[in-house]
Amino acid sequence: MSTDILRMSELYAPTLKETPTDAEIASHQLLLRAGFIRKTASGIYTFLPLGYKVIKKIENIVREEMDAIGSQEILMPVLQPAELWHESGRWNDYGPELMRLCDRHDHDVCLGPTHEELIVALVRNELRSYKQLPLTLYQIQVKFRDEIRPRFGLLRSREFIMKDAYSYHTSQESLQQTYDDMMEAYGRICDRTGLDYRPVQADGGQIGGSVTCEFMALADAGEAELVYCSCGYAANTEAGECIAFPTVYDVPAMEKIATPGVHTIAELAEFLGIPETSTVKALSGKNDEGKLVVLFVPGDHEVNELKAARVAGGFSLLTDEDMEAYGLHKGSMGPVGLPEGAYVIADRSLQAVPKWVVGANEDGFHLVGAQPGVDFTVDEWADLSTVKPGDSCPECGLPLESARGIEVSQVFQLGDKYSRAMNATYMAEDGSEQPYIMGCYGVGISRTMAAIVEQHNDEHGISWPASVAPAHVCIVPLTVGDEDVQPVAEKLARDLAELGVEVVIDDRKERPGVKFADADLIGWPIQVVVGKRGLAEGNVEVKRRSTGERRDVSLTTLEEMVSFSKRNGADIPKVIASLRGMVEG
Amino acid sequence: MSTDILRMSELYAPTLKETPTDAEIASHQLLLRAGFIRKTASGIYTFLPLGYKVIKKIENIVREEMDAIGSQEILMPVLQPAELWHESGRWNDYGPELMRLCDRHDHDVCLGPTHEELIVALVRNELRSYKQLPLTLYQIQVKFRDEIRPRFGLLRSREFIMKDAYSYHTSQESLQQTYDDMMEAYGRICDRTGLDYRPVQADGGQIGGSVTCEFMALADAGEAELVYCSCGYAANTEAGECIAFPTVYDVPAMEKIATPGVHTIAELAEFLGIPETSTVKALSGKNDEGKLVVLFVPGDHEVNELKAARVAGGFSLLTDEDMEAYGLHKGSMGPVGLPEGAYVIADRSLQAVPKWVVGANEDGFHLVGAQPGVDFTVDEWADLSTVKPGDSCPECGLPLESARGIEVSQVFQLGDKYSRAMNATYMAEDGSEQPYIMGCYGVGISRTMAAIVEQHNDEHGISWPASVAPAHVCIVPLTVGDEDVQPVAEKLARDLAELGVEVVIDDRKERPGVKFADADLIGWPIQVVVGKRGLAEGNVEVKRRSTGERRDVSLTTLEEMVSFSKRNGADIPKVIASLRGMVEG
Repeated sequence: MSTDILRMSELYAPTLKETPTDAEIASHQLLLRAGFIRKTASGIYTFLPLGYKVIKKIENIVREEMDAIGSQEILMPVLQPAELWHESGRWNDYGPELMRLCDRHDHDVCLGPTHEELIVALVRNELRSYKQLPLTLYQIQVKFRDEIRPRFGLLRSREFIMKDAYSYHTSQESLQQTYDDMMEAYGRICDRTGLDYRPVQADGGQIGGSVTCEFMALADAGEAELVYCSCGYAANTEAGECIAFPTVYDVPAMEKIATPGVHTIAELAEFLGIPETSTVKALSGKNDEGKLVVLFVPGDHEVNELKAARVAGGFSLLTDEDMEAYGLHKGSMGPVGLPEGAYVIADRSLQAVPKWVVGANEDGFHLVGAQPGVDFTVDEWADLSTVKPGDSCPECGLPLESARGIEVSQVFQLGDKYSRAMNATYMAEDGSEQPYIMGCYGVGISRTMAAIVEQHNDEHGISWPASVAPAHVCIVPLTVGDEDVQPVAEKLARDLAELGVEVVIDDRKERPGVKFADADLIGWPIQVVVGKRGLAEGNVEVKRRSTGERRDVSLTTLEEMVSFSKRNGADIPKVIASLRGMVEG
Repeated sequence: MSTDILRMSELYAPTLKETPTDAEIASHQLLLRAGFIRKTASGIYTFLPLGYKVIKKIENIVREEMDAIGSQEILMPVLQPAELWHESGRWNDYGPELMRLCDRHDHDVCLGPTHEELIVALVRNELRSYKQLPLTLYQIQVKFRDEIRPRFGLLRSREFIMKDAYSYHTSQESLQQTYDDMMEAYGRICDRTGLDYRPVQADGGQIGGSVTCEFMALADAGEAELVYCSCGYAANTEAGECIAFPTVYDVPAMEKIATPGVHTIAELAEFLGIPETSTVKALSGKNDEGKLVVLFVPGDHEVNELKAARVAGGFSLLTDEDMEAYGLHKGSMGPVGLPEGAYVIADRSLQAVPKWVVGANEDGFHLVGAQPGVDFTVDEWADLSTVKPGDSCPECGLPLESARGIEVSQVFQLGDKYSRAMNATYMAEDGSEQPYIMGCYGVGISRTMAAIVEQHNDEHGISWPASVAPAHVCIVPLTVGDEDVQPVAEKLARDLAELGVEVVIDDRKERPGVKFADADLIGWPIQVVVGKRGLAEGNVEVKRRSTGERRDVSLTTLEEMVSFSKRNGADIPKVIASLRGMVEG
């Protein structure tokens, strides 16, 4: 194979006519069908030549943006000693996603799913002075997470490629500065890889960290749900603040009503002939100290257990046995007549509801007109519900809309969580020892590749943005070896390659239909078709994959563009824009 | 940090004054001291910014050479399912170097030490026609081998970076063609990374394959011993053909001599007053079928157990109990009076020796004048000894010399070993199903980095070849912030950076001595020192790290070189050559 021009006759890119049965979403199906990836085992993939070309392009975009904000590239090992994970406490906390093994000398090691422990251990005896801070290090590396149900191809795999960066600071202000730089860099990475995305408020999860933001590529195949507003606000529904609009069912006084067979909010609303927004939903559990906690949210909302745990000091649902012991009834729990010592937390939105429709703590009965502060006490008002579309935007008050998204990257402010646990300090200006203030920042490289395909495909295949395409232009000679067609195709390929454009020539002895189908399936941004009939008029056909637009272009025009670009040192984006322009006329 | 110019004040490159106690060899010591790597666990390292810059340069050289011979880059996973290793038989054969774990669904997986199984499985249902062959795929990836005694830093680590390539063919001729291309590419890789090397005959080891060659970087720290000849011949002593020069101790007839207390060859030679070359050494063992095998080699040589196993059909030493059962005596074994059924193999070099000095199979006695064919029978003559310096070159007959080397890369002809075991076939031109003929080809990327340092260092530190240096030129302003010095240093840095040269500026507020020591330790190929005194005469000092030569150069000369290079579009090697030329005067 030439180093300059890819030849389809030599390229190893086996395409599939049939969609593999276990591939459910477009990116998984198309990356398999177009010969970009192959499955090696459940959740474990090999990148074939085309796939790895795309990965390298994404990596280079990420690398350029990291270097531009002064982050320095390193490479940490995959194998991580258990000792470091014991120091942070995560060896026990992490769960079965952490892949562990024992080496031949009986030392426990794990395969890195993330590198907080290593990055702290790496510098803790050497990055000693405040004068050396701030510092940001990053790596691009393979990561491991033993997903219980790997699926959706590269979106949820067990071995995947990530860029992870870590920063060390002397102050929150310095952390905020780097965090802001990273946010901007991540936006540019999404822009440059052609993603339609939203930065959204998120939850820290297992990494920890209170301030965090996810970059979501909007896609129906995404596993995350997010709410957003035209004002620019966006949040993961797992984390977003909920401001609901409950309605009031007004009755003169509290009354107990027989509701035989009514167990769900939907049944209750129907039975009373009121909207679900006028009802109140209850959920009971225990906090980490074993105390009974009863939560109330608007009937049309769900309790967000992450929020509940944060407010209540841990939260786990009661077992059926617990319920019975407390005399509580599923389907008719309420705030009146709770067991002694129960701690009642209600969603803030319910503060606007003076009279509640809620369970009576008696099977088959509900209360209407139950008044907080009169008929029962609320110990604490808090944000407890999972936000949903129609709720109020916390920034501007307009109703929120919802979408699904793929989390392609995330930034965290870790604070001193890891440096304190691992006793990693620097000497401050006043001579005291202080733990580093830290941030961490991840980009899913292989996941970004899948997200791009989710956003850039149609019924014919993939349509790569030029910035990450495995090559920019595919030249399709219709009759390989023809004495008119072949030399024109080859010269065009050479001319474009000399401008730095990445060119592939489909020199296979296949029917035109096969070549067109493969070119659309693989998704080269620009196709140039060279055929006998067009050449008779001095023309080739140029096609833009993303729009499907095609047009006859004279060879003279192409030659003029090439020689103009050579004289003027045009860069690749300019040449591609010229080719696109020819199609648009 | 600027994207163009590295600044020492921002670069994370912690240097150490003391040599770490567990680092025995130069590359390990210097890569730690100069801040290129840090140890994460036994045999497991992190590459710091400078170290990873060198790794990426080596990777890119390898990538260019692979692409140039038409090899296509892919990326296979680290995690490999046990099923595939059972197919090849290596799950049981590989030994404790293979790191294994069980995933959460109780499936056995291993961390790839090599990828023959995966590469065969990758294509076996898709690379179906002889028309698609030959094909060569490669990857650059982290590999795992659980060494029992990791040591020498990057030379023998448990997690390391390799390039591995695999080729598929329809014939031995086609394999030979790619094998030859790889040999040439590997030679160019060694040349371009600045290595003094020898391609040597080697043994296939655990990978298998009969035709194989190792590229050895010559270095005293190398774990391999090799013999070579001025005619160009070279071989690993584990694998090289042995042509020894035994001498004859002539006596009229066979005689049994009492040799009380004599157990070693040295003692026997001294006792008889003859050279060791006149004695014959014996070794007894069993082959894979349990048959007694007795081996004889010239007394000054050692039995090569790899050769013995190949000739005898497996070879394992007798236990003390076995020896006793057979009536054999360590220290006085010989060919006369061996147990019934013993199979006698003697080194070919002994064919030239009509009378042997050898054990008498009786404790405290030896034979002199024992004649093969008369007093005893040799069942088979073969190449059994480990070659050593002074033996005859198999190509030209001159005496061999010896050296130590670091194996940086190896090429193998695998034949159909893996494709046959894993039932991986293509359809041949005649319609029959045939197993692929295969080759595999590895380059140790991180090991190459260590080998370069072993060959390019002195008492002051590392001296990188420009092709793999973390940056080409270090500009050292002696007084940072000085109104004369600083602007000149910065302008020089910008001018060189605009030419594409990688520049680092030591803008730390440190004493000149510290800066000079660090520059020599880190090993930038060219240093440019900007000081007040020199500037007064319009000069800076340019130093070439590898030779230590230094010379005052006028700023005018430097400026002329820069503007000439800009006008003429000079490439980086030319600019560096110009700077070197200024030092050489």
